[in-house]
Amino acid sequence: MVKIVGIGGSLRSNSYSQQALKLAAQRVEAIGAEVEILDLRSLKLPFCDGESDYSEYPDVERLRATVENADGLILATPEYHGSLSGVLKNALDLMSFEHLDGKVAGLISVLGGQANSNALNDLRVILRWVHAWVIPEQVAIPQAWKAFDPEGKLLDAKIQERLDRLAESLVQNSEKLR
Amino acid sequence: MVKIVGIGGSLRSNSYSQQALKLAAQRVEAIGAEVEILDLRSLKLPFCDGESDYSEYPDVERLRATVENADGLILATPEYHGSLSGVLKNALDLMSFEHLDGKVAGLISVLGGQANSNALNDLRVILRWVHAWVIPEQVAIPQAWKAFDPEGKLLDAKIQERLDRLAESLVQNSEKLR
Amino acid sequence: MVKIVGIGGSLRSNSYSQQALKLAAQRVEAIGAEVEILDLRSLKLPFCDGESDYSEYPDVERLRATVENADGLILATPEYHGSLSGVLKNALDLMSFEHLDGKVAGLISVLGGQANSNALNDLRVILRWVHAWVIPEQVAIPQAWKAFDPEGKLLDAKIQERLDRLAESLVQNSEKLR
Amino acid sequence: MVKIVGIGGSLRSNSYSQQALKLAAQRVEAIGAEVEILDLRSLKLPFCDGESDYSEYPDVERLRATVENADGLILATPEYHGSLSGVLKNALDLMSFEHLDGKVAGLISVLGGQANSNALNDLRVILRWVHAWVIPEQVAIPQAWKAFDPEGKLLDAKIQERLDRLAESLVQNSEKLR
Repeated sequence: MVKIVGIGGSLRSNSYSQQALKLAAQRVEAIGAEVEILDLRSLKLPFCDGESDYSEYPDVERLRATVENADGLILATPEYHGSLSGVLKNALDLMSFEHLDGKVAGLISVLGGQANSNALNDLRVILRWVHAWVIPEQVAIPQAWKAFDPEGKLLDAKIQERLDRLAESLVQNSEKLR
Repeated sequence: MVKIVGIGGSLRSNSYSQQALKLAAQRVEAIGAEVEILDLRSLKLPFCDGESDYSEYPDVERLRATVENADGLILATPEYHGSLSGVLKNALDLMSFEHLDGKVAGLISVLGGQANSNALNDLRVILRWVHAWVIPEQVAIPQAWKAFDPEGKLLDAKIQERLDRLAESLVQNSEKLR
Repeated sequence: MVKIVGIGGSLRSNSYSQQALKLAAQRVEAIGAEVEILDLRSLKLPFCDGESDYSEYPDVERLRATVENADGLILATPEYHGSLSGVLKNALDLMSFEHLDGKVAGLISVLGGQANSNALNDLRVILRWVHAWVIPEQVAIPQAWKAFDPEGKLLDAKIQERLDRLAESLVQNSEKLR
Repeated sequence: MVKIVGIGGSLRSNSYSQQALKLAAQRVEAIGAEVEILDLRSLKLPFCDGESDYSEYPDVERLRATVENADGLILATPEYHGSLSGVLKNALDLMSFEHLDGKVAGLISVLGGQANSNALNDLRVILRWVHAWVIPEQVAIPQAWKAFDPEGKLLDAKIQERLDRLAESLVQNSEKLR
């Protein structure tokens, strides 16, 4: 059974990245894979200081072990200042090849304004740097503040469809590539 | 008098980014500009949560005000996983257009391995996103662990020269563009 | 008097890049700078072969000399496959530092689909590589096939305004930086 | 049997990209896959004009059909001005989703100066745009003018090893992903 871990790069209480991640995760489960979401809002992670001792922060080890034991990842980030959030990059900085090498990843970004791919592009290159695979399917959700209904569903069926295809491709290809 | 603020994107105690930043800052001073270094190791900054209330962290306001009052910036970052550090991105995420718009910036990266420009490229685009200028001069310091002598001077005179030119261009062009 | 050269990266007969370039050029002229458009559809340029002899193609020399004698550049490109056109990159490949160093550039892209910044980002980094400056203002025109009226004017006044601001910033800053 | 097509992005007579491509192709054959190299120096391709009629240039159809019938691609490019060559981008511009969708690609760049990844990064994003997969393995060959011996072999065994691993990963994963 394929195991997918989702990580959302926003700490905002009503985060649209976390919401988009949840919708993708639901599709992952619906097609029979296992999914676990690591919510950076509840994990207690330090800033990465380039050293190796984070023993005061047991959630660093939890992050690393959960990712290492997964086959695939979904990373969802707000696009801040034309790139991924520092929060998500810092979580990635706390991991290394041994945790990320060979993972298959699907990428989602949410934006306050019009569509753009900077955060997705930067994440694609970052993941290559740790020897992960990034699937071709990716989703950018523009004007995220008006993209969801009060129940957290996407108003635009095409975007939901793209999230579904991302989830399906991720599960299928995590299986093929492991 | 031109005011330059330097920000180093590493929290490591013996950080090479901070050392490279210091060398560039010395040249900025030597040619008659004012320079202040904001050391993220001594500032107490939170993770950016996309909200606006950071009143518990007075250093957020200090970061913002110092940058807003400057003409130019030097940003120095380790290249982690093929991009800038999450620590530096998070510091940038805590600021917005009102603090960064129109600033002139010079970029430095340090790497454990061979030369590469990913962190510099990503920073260049990020700074454009907040309407800052980035000067063409930039410096990547490969194999930083063997680049400095015990007094913190660069062993390769060409790299020092490039840092000097970056500092000179930054000061001259901050003056022209303000 | 500031001299600006515009280069459009599309060879299509009814090119939207060329049209957007023309509108920006009109604003450059309106504020008192000189502007010349090099239309790659009428220049006879070869593929760059990494060698130096293009004597059979006098337009190579014309391209180089025109750019070298300018203060600033406007580059307009269609976004093809998530980057600038090969046609425009090839024209840039035919030039070197001596022609492009120190120029100030403004960037425009046109897209068939929704907004995106890949071509603009790639161009920004490419121009840095030849020691040019790129102004923070840039314009991406999404769904270009429905962006212009039959007279070639932009239907969305905000995009026209952004082209105007790009032209104004380019002229002012070419003057400051030369 | 896996079919791989190699395309080199340089027209230089003694092209190092073509040489690196040849070495990777030899490894592809050695492990039992089929390989065909499309040499852009002998194909007669036009500049892409964004239209669809290239009937005067039968090599456009040959390029498209060869790529469409392959499982995987090796793209090798010189890094010109901090990106891939215009020549290679133009060849990609002449193709579309129907030819490139779902292909698995491995990337090589050669540089005159020190190591850098710009051309590789740009290619990685471009290939995603046409729904291709790019394997994590990639090779940048710095100072290419002194990288090969007179017989065309790489002097640095580690780089040859990286080319071999790229070829092996490409073949294995083209098989898994098709």
